[in-house]
Amino acid sequence: MSIEIERKFLVKSDNFKKQSFQKKQIKQGYLNTNKNRNVRVRITNNSAYITVKGKSNASGTSRFEWEKKIDVKDAEKLLLLCEPSIIDKTRYLVKRGKHIFEIDEFFGDNQGLIIAEIELDAEDEKFDKPNWLGKEVTGNVKYYNSSISKHPFKNWS
Amino acid sequence: MSIEIERKFLVKSDNFKKQSFQKKQIKQGYLNTNKNRNVRVRITNNSAYITVKGKSNASGTSRFEWEKKIDVKDAEKLLLLCEPSIIDKTRYLVKRGKHIFEIDEFFGDNQGLIIAEIELDAEDEKFDKPNWLGKEVTGNVKYYNSSISKHPFKNWS
Repeated sequence: MSIEIERKFLVKSDNFKKQSFQKKQIKQGYLNTNKNRNVRVRITNNSAYITVKGKSNASGTSRFEWEKKIDVKDAEKLLLLCEPSIIDKTRYLVKRGKHIFEIDEFFGDNQGLIIAEIELDAEDEKFDKPNWLGKEVTGNVKYYNSSISKHPFKNWS
Repeated sequence: MSIEIERKFLVKSDNFKKQSFQKKQIKQGYLNTNKNRNVRVRITNNSAYITVKGKSNASGTSRFEWEKKIDVKDAEKLLLLCEPSIIDKTRYLVKRGKHIFEIDEFFGDNQGLIIAEIELDAEDEKFDKPNWLGKEVTGNVKYYNSSISKHPFKNWS
C-alpha cells in the first residue's frame, strides 16, 4: 500500500530503446475503470498482480495504490473477465541519474502510442530530461491505461 | 478459483439462530459492481479477502468466483475506497443434513433483511428445507450484496 508520485510524458523518438537496461512484456486488463478507483489485473513475464488504484490528487501526480501478487493461472482467468480491451505493451526501463524511467510501447489497438513515466519521492523533485522525452501529460486522464483500455489510441482524433 | 453453485432464500423467522453453530461479523464493500463482474473487499473476524465474482449463468445458480486472502489493514484502507455503502451483517451457519446454510442478518441501511444461502454440488441437488426458509430469490439481482450495497433495503418499496 502506498501513495504513488509520478509524472508522465509522451515520447518523441525511440532513442530510449538503446538506453534501456530491462525490457518486459505486459498484458493487463481492468475489472473496473472508474474515476474514483480501478482494479487492474496484470501479467508480466512469469508474474501476475491484482492492483487497486484510487483517485489522483488535484495535480494528478499522486494516487493511492495497493498491489497483491497472484497466480499467473488465476490472472489468465481474470483477464477473460475484464472489460474490453486487454492492453498489450512492452515496458523498457531507462536509468537516468538516481531515477528510473518506465517507457511503455503499446501494441494492437494502441500501436503508435509510447508513454514514459518517472516515479518521484516528492511532487517538486528535480530530474534529468532525456532528449526523447516529449510533452508532459501528467494528470491527463486520457493517458491513463484504464482510459486507453476503453478508448484505444487508434480511435483518437 | 471456482464456479459457485448456490440457491438463495428469504428467511421467515429467526428460528435459525437457535440452530446456528457459528456466528461471525462481516463488513464488506465493493470496488465495483457491474452485471458482468464485481470486486468485493471483506473483513470477517480477523481475516480479510478480495474476491472477484463473474456473471451468473441463466438460472442464476452458478457463478465464477476467485478469492485471495489479504491483510486486514490493507482491507480497511480498501474499504475506504469502495463504492457507497459498506455492508454490515452477521452471518450464522446452520448445518442441515450434509449441507450448510449461511444466513445473513443485515444491519444499518439494510436492517430487517435476512437472506439464507445454500451451496450445492449440482444445480438440481436435493436438500432439506427448514421451516424458517421463505421465498426463493436465486438469481434475483436485487438480492445480490453488490446491489444491496447500492440500493439498500430501507429504500425498497
